[in-house]
Amino acid sequence: MNDATQRAWAYLSRVVEPPCAELAALVARVGPVEAADRVRQGHVDVALARRTEARREINCAAEDLDILARRGGRLVIPDDDEWPALAFTAFGGTTVAAKPQGRPPLALWVLGPSRLDDVAQRAAAVVGTRAATSYGEHVAADLAVGLAEHDVAVVSGGAYGIDGAAHRAALSVDGLTVAVLAGGIDIPYPAGHSALLHRIATDGLLVTEYPPGIRPARHRFLTRNRLVAAFGGASVVVEAGLRSGAANTAAWARALGRVVGAVPGPITSSASSGCHALLRTGAEVITRAEDVVELVGRIGELGAEQSSPTSPLDALSEEERRVYEALPGRGTATVDEIAIATAVEPARILAPLAMLEIAGLVERHDGSWRLVRRKS
Amino acid sequence: MNDATQRAWAYLSRVVEPPCAELAALVARVGPVEAADRVRQGHVDVALARRTEARREINCAAEDLDILARRGGRLVIPDDDEWPALAFTAFGGTTVAAKPQGRPPLALWVLGPSRLDDVAQRAAAVVGTRAATSYGEHVAADLAVGLAEHDVAVVSGGAYGIDGAAHRAALSVDGLTVAVLAGGIDIPYPAGHSALLHRIATDGLLVTEYPPGIRPARHRFLTRNRLVAAFGGASVVVEAGLRSGAANTAAWARALGRVVGAVPGPITSSASSGCHALLRTGAEVITRAEDVVELVGRIGELGAEQSSPTSPLDALSEEERRVYEALPGRGTATVDEIAIATAVEPARILAPLAMLEIAGLVERHDGSWRLVRRKS
Repeated sequence: MNDATQRAWAYLSRVVEPPCAELAALVARVGPVEAADRVRQGHVDVALARRTEARREINCAAEDLDILARRGGRLVIPDDDEWPALAFTAFGGTTVAAKPQGRPPLALWVLGPSRLDDVAQRAAAVVGTRAATSYGEHVAADLAVGLAEHDVAVVSGGAYGIDGAAHRAALSVDGLTVAVLAGGIDIPYPAGHSALLHRIATDGLLVTEYPPGIRPARHRFLTRNRLVAAFGGASVVVEAGLRSGAANTAAWARALGRVVGAVPGPITSSASSGCHALLRTGAEVITRAEDVVELVGRIGELGAEQSSPTSPLDALSEEERRVYEALPGRGTATVDEIAIATAVEPARILAPLAMLEIAGLVERHDGSWRLVRRKS
Repeated sequence: MNDATQRAWAYLSRVVEPPCAELAALVARVGPVEAADRVRQGHVDVALARRTEARREINCAAEDLDILARRGGRLVIPDDDEWPALAFTAFGGTTVAAKPQGRPPLALWVLGPSRLDDVAQRAAAVVGTRAATSYGEHVAADLAVGLAEHDVAVVSGGAYGIDGAAHRAALSVDGLTVAVLAGGIDIPYPAGHSALLHRIATDGLLVTEYPPGIRPARHRFLTRNRLVAAFGGASVVVEAGLRSGAANTAAWARALGRVVGAVPGPITSSASSGCHALLRTGAEVITRAEDVVELVGRIGELGAEQSSPTSPLDALSEEERRVYEALPGRGTATVDEIAIATAVEPARILAPLAMLEIAGLVERHDGSWRLVRRKS
């Protein structure tokens, strides 16, 4: 890849808030250099113009690549051998493609000695709440060690709690671990994990679709979660409260045709309630690393696709539709209010809400939920 | 019921080791008094003669009824209004009837102020290991209190550990509880539960198909478990090791078309491993009493019957068949050996083994398992 091409990819990586289907289509049609030129000059159709307008005049591609180079990193693009194409094929499925964020990344900013495609071929996502208990951290560590011993890479989000315990345990036995960030590779987040993320960048892989300098934000965590799910042949939730972001990763895993597993815990522990909710909606019971290894092995068999839905609402399950219809036309509803309206208990509303959020149909607002107004 | 009839039932209740299809058929045909006469004189067909030969000359019916009367108890028979006919209809299903012990009791020895038919109409079995942890006992008590508050009777086996915690908690909030014994009502077992069983007999119900003086034995616990499962509209296993008798109750519940629930626990606790194995094979996740109340409510919808199998082997699931075929023609195999032979992990062999045991196809022997030789 020559410098101009590389700068074009870096420019394109920043000019939209990823993922962006219109930009991906343009790049596929005219190549990155021409695509970057057209975007820069505003010679693009209305939809893409709207997505790129705010940032098209920012040109710090050379500086971004410089920051990357100084850290020994690389920008991985779809033409590279290292591009984890296999992990991303599931984005071609109609269920996931019907969701606004249901696209592969345009390019990936990567730090670390391993090849991303190799790692993604045999990996499991181990995720969970930041507010983990010592039981949860213990189990996350045990699973990560077991996975490492079976040559399964441990993918997670680098957060406090379960994520950190899983990364750290994998590193402790010289296993491979991948942290997928919701911001630039130069922004260690959370700050308290700077040293851990540095170790992951040295011995494992640090991956993000965001260019340097981009700070994590709530919507970026949710968008990032689809990559955690995509890199893992299976996704395991170790501990999660009922309102945990781990449910979002689990929902992405399901949308991508990946198996979701959940670790049971004491029913007296609210940190396990999200796991029990997932078990109710069909997640596999995980009690040992071997259970996960078995699920990861199954990835090839999965990804069979349903028939193409004509609207996002058609893709909803019975349960999701019930929850969707329970939300008020205006204003918000709490989980308890939705529970009353649907006559479905709060614990069972979590999974449908997470799927609806991914589908872009509902959003969180001040701890409650509301419908996303659809432009028609 | 006149005295002669009552004595006939008491005699019949002791003359066979229950349940006995041949005896039930004879009573249905000629009535209890005539049936008792014929058995006593040996005027019965070969099959029934073999089953009754050892005890047909024992006639302590009057004394048995006396013991019962002194304790304020009653012998409940199929003609009585109190007979829990509804709870026993599931024994008519072909799956359960194909199992040697898959029959309703002939008569029931009962102590306690409640009507058995009323109680069985809204009841849940709460069972588990004697070697319970404090977590398990806490959860069993919580569930029992919640069930009592929803007017669901708590059925269990009166044993140490989970059973005792459930009975005790139900009593503590003046809820109904039923202990189904594996011996006579005059044999408090375990001895350490004498006071508890006495309280159950005073405020709840003590039920057994065994006449006075009969001591519990291993095979009687397994036979008794079918009644615990039958009385409960659903059966919940709170804590159970992989080799626990609670799996046997759960298997009976499934054979009877009842829903089985299991309480998750720490995966680091072997006392929860049987529960996790049950969750893997389709048990409902139980985290609150309300979950059980919902399952109990479903009893009417269940009991749909599969087509009639022509041999016990035809009724086996794929998994059960695999485990069955893994057992050696002669000698025994441990769970670990079966696991290796079937390539199914030990935790997943528990449920099939329990079903095969109920089906009379395999039996435990010195901690290992062997095929039961079939007379042909």
